[in-house]
Amino acid sequence: MERKGNLMTYRPDIKVFDATIRDGGLVNNFFFTDEFVKALYLANLRAGVDYMEMGYLADTDVFKPEDFGDWKFCKEENLRRIVGNNETDMKLSVMADVGRTNLQRDLLPKSESVIDMVRVATYINTMPAAIEMIEYADSLGYETTCNIMAISKANTADIEEAMKLLAKSPIKAVYIVDSYGSLFPEQIQELTKMYLSYMEPVGKAVGMHAHNNQQMAFANTVESCSMGASFLDATVGSMGRGAGNCAMELLLGFLKNPKYNLTPILQFYQDYILKLKEDGLKWGYDIQYLLTGKMNLHPSSAIAFTKENRTDYADFYHQIFDLEP
Amino acid sequence: MERKGNLMTYRPDIKVFDATIRDGGLVNNFFFTDEFVKALYLANLRAGVDYMEMGYLADTDVFKPEDFGDWKFCKEENLRRIVGNNETDMKLSVMADVGRTNLQRDLLPKSESVIDMVRVATYINTMPAAIEMIEYADSLGYETTCNIMAISKANTADIEEAMKLLAKSPIKAVYIVDSYGSLFPEQIQELTKMYLSYMEPVGKAVGMHAHNNQQMAFANTVESCSMGASFLDATVGSMGRGAGNCAMELLLGFLKNPKYNLTPILQFYQDYILKLKEDGLKWGYDIQYLLTGKMNLHPSSAIAFTKENRTDYADFYHQIFDLEP
Repeated sequence: MERKGNLMTYRPDIKVFDATIRDGGLVNNFFFTDEFVKALYLANLRAGVDYMEMGYLADTDVFKPEDFGDWKFCKEENLRRIVGNNETDMKLSVMADVGRTNLQRDLLPKSESVIDMVRVATYINTMPAAIEMIEYADSLGYETTCNIMAISKANTADIEEAMKLLAKSPIKAVYIVDSYGSLFPEQIQELTKMYLSYMEPVGKAVGMHAHNNQQMAFANTVESCSMGASFLDATVGSMGRGAGNCAMELLLGFLKNPKYNLTPILQFYQDYILKLKEDGLKWGYDIQYLLTGKMNLHPSSAIAFTKENRTDYADFYHQIFDLEP
Repeated sequence: MERKGNLMTYRPDIKVFDATIRDGGLVNNFFFTDEFVKALYLANLRAGVDYMEMGYLADTDVFKPEDFGDWKFCKEENLRRIVGNNETDMKLSVMADVGRTNLQRDLLPKSESVIDMVRVATYINTMPAAIEMIEYADSLGYETTCNIMAISKANTADIEEAMKLLAKSPIKAVYIVDSYGSLFPEQIQELTKMYLSYMEPVGKAVGMHAHNNQQMAFANTVESCSMGASFLDATVGSMGRGAGNCAMELLLGFLKNPKYNLTPILQFYQDYILKLKEDGLKWGYDIQYLLTGKMNLHPSSAIAFTKENRTDYADFYHQIFDLEP
C-alpha cells in the first residue's frame, strides 16, 4: 500500500469542497437566509476553501418552488444576490441530479453564469444519463464531476464499467459517495485505489463524499485523501442529511497546507450553525443512523425515527433488521 | 502492511472491554446508582462483553470518599452488592493509577475478590512504579495490563524502552491510550505494529483505548484491531471524560463474532444513558474537544469551556494556541 504524502506534509492537489448549503439544505428544505449564505461564502473565502456548492439545480417541473428555498434551484439572479460576480479564487458549483434536473432549460452558457462547476449526481444504473448531462454541461463551458451515490450498494463489476465510461468523459473528478455511511476505511482504501487506477492515467481526480452514520465520515475522508483522493467534501458542523457529513472544522484542522485557515469556520459555526440547532433543526450522528449505516440501508427510516422523536433504538434495530433482504 | 482478518471474518482473540463506569465516572464523579451499574452489568453479560471495568481502586488518602461515588474506590463489598460472586464468563477489572492507589492496603488476594484483572494506568515517565504495581497485583493472583496514557506526547524511544520492560513483566496486555484524542489511524497503525513487535514474541496482547476528540475513537479502534490489537475498550454512548470514548454500540455493530449481541446495549442506552443526558451530564464530541485533540493537549481546558457553557470556539482556539510550546 502506498500513501501519498504523510501527516507532516501537504498535497497541493487537494481541493476542499464546502457542501454545507447543498447537503445541509436537505435538512431544512434549503430555507437558508441570505445572511447565512453570504456569511458562509465569506467564511469559506477567508478559510481558503477551494469550491463552494451553492445548492441543487433542481427541475421546477419535479419540485414545487414554494416548497423549497432558493438554493434548491440556484437561479443565476439568486446566486448573484450573494456572490455578485464572484471575483475571487474560490469556485462555485451546483449539483444536478439525474432525472430531476433540466439542464437544457436551466443551465446558462458558462460565460453568462457565476457557476464554475456542475456536479452530476447519479446512481450506478443511470450512468448513461449522467454522462449525457456531463457532456452537455461541458459543452457549455463548465467543469464537471460525476458523483456516484450509494456506492456501498453497487457491484464492483458495475463500478468498473462506470469508471471506463467516465475515463472517456470530460469530467474533472469522480466522487466516491458513501450515501449510507456504511463503509469502513479499509473499503474506502480499496475503492480509492480502484477509482484512481482508471482516473490517474487520464489526468482526472478522485473525490470523497462521506456520511457520518458510523462516525467514519472524517476517518474515511482522511483515508481516501491519504490514498490519493483530492476533492474532499465537507460541511460546517457536519450539516447534511441524516447523520451528516465530514465536518469542515475537522478537515481544515487536519490539512497542513497553510492556505487553509480554521478560524473563520469556527466563527461561522458559533454565529450561524449553533442558531440552526437552537431553532430545532436536527442532524448528525445518532444511534438510529448508526443502525441504518451498519445495515447498509438508505437513512430514510432513521430520518423518520428522528422526526417522530423516538428513542426506542432496540425496537428500531429489529424493525430495520426485517427490512434487509 | 498486513492486516489480521478482514471485514467478513472475526478473530476469536478479541476481547471487548466495557469501561463505561470507569471512564464515564470521570463525568459524574462516579455517582452511578446501583440500578444503573447492575443494569449495565446485565446488559454486558447479554451482549457477550468479555471484561467489565467496575471503576478505580483509588486511594482514600488521596481522594475524599465523600466527594465520589463507590466506583472510585471499588471496595469488595460494594462490588459484590452488584455482581454477587460474578459466577459468569465475563471478567471484572479495576483500574489502578500510579501514585493514586494503595495496592498493598486495598487489594485483596484474588481468592477473596470478584476482581479478575487490575489495569495499571501510568504515564511513560512512571513506568518503574507501574511495573512494581503490576508485579504486586500479579503476585496476588490477578490478571494485569499496563495502560500507558497520553501516548501522543511520548517519545518513540521512551515507548520502546517501556515495551522492553513490559515484555518481561507479567502483564496480559499493554494498551495504546490516546488520552488526548489526537492520533490518526496512520499513527495508530504504526503504534500497534510497534507494540505488537515486542508483545507477540512473548505471548502478550495489545489493547486500544481511544478518545473521540476528532471523531476518530471508533476509526482508531478499528484500525488498531485490524493491525492485531485484541483488547478493545469501549463505553456505552461513548460515556467518558471530555469527548468520550469509542462507543460500545459502534464496536459491537462492527464485530462479526456471533457471540456479541448489540440489542442489550441499545436497550441500556435508551433506558439509562439517555436519562443521564437529560439530567444534564455532558460528554462527547464537540468543537472544543476537537481543538485540544488537534493541538495534542490535555482536555482540561475544553472541559472547563464546556462547564462554563461557552460557545466562543474561535476565541478558545486562539487561547489554547498560545498554550502550545
